Amino acid sequence: MIRIALDAMSGDFAPDELVKGAMLAVRTFEDVHLELFGDEERIQQLLTQPSDRISVVHTTEVITGDDEPTTAVRRKKDSSMVRAARSVKDGTNQAMVTAGNTGAALTAALATVGRIKGIKRPGLAPAFPTLTPGNKPVILLDAGANVDLDPAHLHQFAIIGSVYARDVMGIENPRVGLLNNGSEETKGNKQTKETYQLLKAEENINFVGNIEPTHLLTGDCDLLVADGFTGNIALKTMEGTVKNMMGFIKSTLSEGNLKTKIGGALIKDALKEAVGSLGEHEIGGAVFLGIDAPIIKGHGNSNDAAILNAIRQARTAVENDFVQKTRDYFA
Amino acid sequence: MIRIALDAMSGDFAPDELVKGAMLAVRTFEDVHLELFGDEERIQQLLTQPSDRISVVHTTEVITGDDEPTTAVRRKKDSSMVRAARSVKDGTNQAMVTAGNTGAALTAALATVGRIKGIKRPGLAPAFPTLTPGNKPVILLDAGANVDLDPAHLHQFAIIGSVYARDVMGIENPRVGLLNNGSEETKGNKQTKETYQLLKAEENINFVGNIEPTHLLTGDCDLLVADGFTGNIALKTMEGTVKNMMGFIKSTLSEGNLKTKIGGALIKDALKEAVGSLGEHEIGGAVFLGIDAPIIKGHGNSNDAAILNAIRQARTAVENDFVQKTRDYFA
Repeated sequence: MIRIALDAMSGDFAPDELVKGAMLAVRTFEDVHLELFGDEERIQQLLTQPSDRISVVHTTEVITGDDEPTTAVRRKKDSSMVRAARSVKDGTNQAMVTAGNTGAALTAALATVGRIKGIKRPGLAPAFPTLTPGNKPVILLDAGANVDLDPAHLHQFAIIGSVYARDVMGIENPRVGLLNNGSEETKGNKQTKETYQLLKAEENINFVGNIEPTHLLTGDCDLLVADGFTGNIALKTMEGTVKNMMGFIKSTLSEGNLKTKIGGALIKDALKEAVGSLGEHEIGGAVFLGIDAPIIKGHGNSNDAAILNAIRQARTAVENDFVQKTRDYFA
Repeated sequence: MIRIALDAMSGDFAPDELVKGAMLAVRTFEDVHLELFGDEERIQQLLTQPSDRISVVHTTEVITGDDEPTTAVRRKKDSSMVRAARSVKDGTNQAMVTAGNTGAALTAALATVGRIKGIKRPGLAPAFPTLTPGNKPVILLDAGANVDLDPAHLHQFAIIGSVYARDVMGIENPRVGLLNNGSEETKGNKQTKETYQLLKAEENINFVGNIEPTHLLTGDCDLLVADGFTGNIALKTMEGTVKNMMGFIKSTLSEGNLKTKIGGALIKDALKEAVGSLGEHEIGGAVFLGIDAPIIKGHGNSNDAAILNAIRQARTAVENDFVQKTRDYFA
């Protein structure tokens, strides 16, 4: 049995969508046991399909999106998030899923589970969809866990990200790209130039060179390495551009002349289907790589299907024992 | 008479579009004299509407997009770009327009015209269109001239960018934003956190705080301050996202079922009009701010209309004497 802790009070639609996602997950995976941390009375009311593979642990506090991470984790000791993380540390559970405050989740993970020995900095690794057939995802590491990093940290990201891409995301011989302001080897700032040389010399990864931001959606790599500041800037720029453009196109079509309006109505579904997924911040959950257990961070607006996906990732991470593989590498 | 040097051998469509742009410009502005630097024979052939306000200086070399900037500027002394820059330094012309190699243009400008006294680093300032009524532009400084900068450099950018926004772009009391990975004052890396405090304390600018990349197209500021690496990442991510999305939407509509195809045909024009300008890297030319004369860098794929726009910017910069205003400020 794979035992996963679920922070049931996390995200915009807690606990409803978390409980629904949990019920979906035990129906989908016969080998998963979920421990839900949160307001027991509310959770039990929502648990319309109880299962002997769903247990509930009552907690009295909630860490919100507005909470300052370090303070919140230190003070809210009986929060669903901190309790869930502690249950992974003490061995009750093997992985954790939360849709809550990203900074707090990282802080809680560091304070309880801790880093894998030899890893200097953990990073947040979401996957974003590209405009390739099947919207093949690119894993971005780091998307914002650490804003000030050295080339040595990025070098480690390339390695732990490759292990994750292969063993959890199922990508064979993952292509590693470096997010940079130009494609040539000589391009970049001090940090990316130095990182380029480290990645080029690293035999354990499949380094394909610099990735220019104009090529983020064309799927030129499977793992995109960046410091958390730059990665976050690129991810949010993509997200904002897609969202703002789609909104603009929709209003243009609905406010246009009759010809445009009719055309708009005819293409509505195709357009929605084609670019719908691009508006999302990420596919499934993001994982904190470098933490000594799989900690999956779902998007704040996760619905039951997104929670199911995050649980799937946690399950795959446990099953393939990718944390142990990372430990072995850095031992 | 406003005297402008034009690097007629620059850009993807040289010298044809440059010469056409020059002919357009002397018809549009009665007070502009253009000196075209390049292959005299080819230029004269293209000069189908000669004017006593267009002169030609023969040059024998061309700096290409592939040239390494420093080497090219040092070695190709008789290139159209270096000769044009020197004509500004020696006072023959008051401003320069080029659509060539950005790094070489900056190097040539620094080597001949030089920096304004007191300015530590010059920056490249293009303007990109937003999804606001009239596609109101945001000036980005620095878009890529300097990849490793200190908060003190960004502080200067906020000031020289404000002078430019007001006196050349005609924006009253320009709102200055700092490109950052979060909107709150506490967000950012070491560089942006320190820059935030400098900009907050600066009385000569209208600082409106951090701008998150999800808000680049919503027009929350008039001048966006960033180091050249981060600015370049954001600009290219936007450019690539818009371009790739539009391509994807077009192919989805043309390859869809009959309903989608008909709809696609009906909305084609409206869609093109609505988002057409967003696919462009920038509006008009970008200016090197901090250089001791107006040096305007048009996009590499500039056509005659884009060259006209770049010449318009150079003219406005000379007319409003914004370089002198910047000199006065830093004196």
